[in-house]
Amino acid sequence: MRLSRSLVPTLKETPAEAQIASHRLMLRAGLVRQTSAGIYAWLPAGWRVLQNITQIVREEQDASGAQELLMPTIQSAELWRQSGRYDAYGPEMLRIRDRHDREMLYGPTNEEMITDIFRQSVRSYRELPQNLYHIQWKFRDEVRPRFGVMRGREFLMKDAYSFDLDYEGAVISYRKMMLAYMRTFQRLGVKAIPMVADTGPIGGNLSHEFIILAPTGESQVYYDGAFEQIDPTSGDFSFDSPEDLARFYETLTTPYAATDEKHDTAAWANVADKREGRGIEVGHIFYFGTKYSGPMGLTVAGPDGKTLTPHMGSYGIGVSRLVGAIIEASHDDAGIIWPDSVAPWKAAILNLKAGDAACEAICEEAYTRLDGQALYDDREDRAGVKFADADLMGHPWQIVVGPRAAAAGRVELKRRATGERAEVTLSDALARIA
Amino acid sequence: MRLSRSLVPTLKETPAEAQIASHRLMLRAGLVRQTSAGIYAWLPAGWRVLQNITQIVREEQDASGAQELLMPTIQSAELWRQSGRYDAYGPEMLRIRDRHDREMLYGPTNEEMITDIFRQSVRSYRELPQNLYHIQWKFRDEVRPRFGVMRGREFLMKDAYSFDLDYEGAVISYRKMMLAYMRTFQRLGVKAIPMVADTGPIGGNLSHEFIILAPTGESQVYYDGAFEQIDPTSGDFSFDSPEDLARFYETLTTPYAATDEKHDTAAWANVADKREGRGIEVGHIFYFGTKYSGPMGLTVAGPDGKTLTPHMGSYGIGVSRLVGAIIEASHDDAGIIWPDSVAPWKAAILNLKAGDAACEAICEEAYTRLDGQALYDDREDRAGVKFADADLMGHPWQIVVGPRAAAAGRVELKRRATGERAEVTLSDALARIA
Repeated sequence: MRLSRSLVPTLKETPAEAQIASHRLMLRAGLVRQTSAGIYAWLPAGWRVLQNITQIVREEQDASGAQELLMPTIQSAELWRQSGRYDAYGPEMLRIRDRHDREMLYGPTNEEMITDIFRQSVRSYRELPQNLYHIQWKFRDEVRPRFGVMRGREFLMKDAYSFDLDYEGAVISYRKMMLAYMRTFQRLGVKAIPMVADTGPIGGNLSHEFIILAPTGESQVYYDGAFEQIDPTSGDFSFDSPEDLARFYETLTTPYAATDEKHDTAAWANVADKREGRGIEVGHIFYFGTKYSGPMGLTVAGPDGKTLTPHMGSYGIGVSRLVGAIIEASHDDAGIIWPDSVAPWKAAILNLKAGDAACEAICEEAYTRLDGQALYDDREDRAGVKFADADLMGHPWQIVVGPRAAAAGRVELKRRATGERAEVTLSDALARIA
Repeated sequence: MRLSRSLVPTLKETPAEAQIASHRLMLRAGLVRQTSAGIYAWLPAGWRVLQNITQIVREEQDASGAQELLMPTIQSAELWRQSGRYDAYGPEMLRIRDRHDREMLYGPTNEEMITDIFRQSVRSYRELPQNLYHIQWKFRDEVRPRFGVMRGREFLMKDAYSFDLDYEGAVISYRKMMLAYMRTFQRLGVKAIPMVADTGPIGGNLSHEFIILAPTGESQVYYDGAFEQIDPTSGDFSFDSPEDLARFYETLTTPYAATDEKHDTAAWANVADKREGRGIEVGHIFYFGTKYSGPMGLTVAGPDGKTLTPHMGSYGIGVSRLVGAIIEASHDDAGIIWPDSVAPWKAAILNLKAGDAACEAICEEAYTRLDGQALYDDREDRAGVKFADADLMGHPWQIVVGPRAAAAGRVELKRRATGERAEVTLSDALARIA
């Protein structure tokens, strides 16, 4: 995109309402604008980041064998009465009456709906296991929304739901999701650690949350240095092998890791390689057996003709929250430092002298050759403004085009993460970016 | 996907509630399930179709120079009071009170919100023109939802909003969208014709709706045979040339075309090549000048320092409605006939004898080589059931693997649209599918 004709409204001033780094930087870099308390519009740059994250989440869910579908945002209260959660859920549920005075709600999660769809469609044990996910907007009517997209009211979540014939099958599904999650977070350029968690309103008796390490995170975390050595993308772990999954699960759940809520000082004393830091929850997985399938009457015919009640789990990733969490994990005083995989554009092209023929020729060539992967700062503005905005927006690469170097057919290539700069030909710059 | 472990619940019986072909076929082919009146869950096959359509719409919007963003589903009533539409909109607007008793609503359209975002962000004439779009779920609380996704309550719409300095600029933006729309519909495999339309609750004084020709469409349409000759994808029309756009606009708006609501029998009498048919509205574009920018106080500084009030237009495509409309335009007694560009899978692989080693080997090879683009019917079911389901689901190609041909290393390849069949090697089949 050409910045002069784009809706990328960067701000010099720090908005007063933003208390944490990611909120400040998302507003200043023109990623989002608040439209009501805790509700955000994703402007073009922010939307590109959100789509990049969504696509990585999707690919790793698909790789695990999960099927994507899409459930609607508006649900009937009736379904939630069947599970007993309608009255239990409290004021965070956005309750709605339609024109016929029917009780509806904006879904905060989808255990009831997916169980209903599954019980209408699936009859036989032969059709299990299945894992179904969607990436859909949810609403949680927070009493005091804050921290930008980290604790907003309308938020994007990936939620998956597994159906297995028995506990043993459900454990395999649970472990598959743990592997998919670790691969997802690794591709997103952040370090995540699973920690045993409370099950909260979802229920069940096995649960882990995934905590991203970030210096400005919301929770204090304690973990074993062994986590630094685990590579979930190594070929050692296959989704098709229950043995691999068991080994992966053991690798990830044996070393000590806890948030301050669950911190066990006695166990901590025995950890050889103690690490402490701050963390942000970005995912949460649950096994809850027949908590929904039981009361909602989901059964399938078993091999012997008897009916079975499937065992279920659910698996969430806070997709819009991840945008904030990644920024908390990766920024400096000048702005965001996007991991390459999620950056809105791979590179910014900074024309330091609009109107200079050599500068414009190189910029246009770079823009064409980067084919949609560059933001071209073609504004009639001072170089200092362009440098500051490029650092603020956090493009992994900056192609800086000044008149002197341009006349010699060269550009300055800057790597945002390290600050490294080099004067090179445009072709060399593009080769490094690709 | 392997059909045995997939949520693709085809139905033999026609659901009683479905009155039109697309609704019946979407239920029978397992594309959607209703979760509340006029609200649907998109099951895996339906979701793939919806994503394919979304992606084509997106690519053509991007090609026209529009920028994608995403506005939230829940809006504040306050904004709609500024435009005067809050009270005017009537009971189709889903009105909501949050936990603090603030008046909110589920957006049926976004003129107010985009105008608000734009007025916060854009200051100078230099930043215009811009066209911003999103593809987001909307809600329209229909008193009597029916016809499946064709007249649902929660529906997916692409809506774009253009901002220009003056009327002349706005006309160019309007024509760009007309070109983008015609290219979109052509890629979707349907024939669309723009027809002059009423502006309704959006307002303004220039408006066209885009009608897809479909034998079972909702409206009677009358049009000049000249439309059959127009190729919007020809290289003759560039988004960057106002002259090209003017010529394209004239080509599309000069020949007679009207729905029965607007039919002019006197003008019709003069049409040499009269065509009649049925049609379905799938898009609607509007120019409405300063109807929103005026009352909402959106201004930019002009070149002479004086403030200007931008001229706006809005441009909608009913993305979820298109799934139904394409089926209305392309089906037969046996089921759906997907255009290649939107089909959930390019091909189905039908194993006519599960357990036969030669059949399984060829099926597995086909499934692997088609790499996510095939639905493999590996169910333990009769051949007749598989034939019927494949025709019902409308895959463009069927790879039929029976034991006799498989033993000779061959498959039967069927083209759904024509019924043509040929016994060929698997490699030949895959070459034709690609």
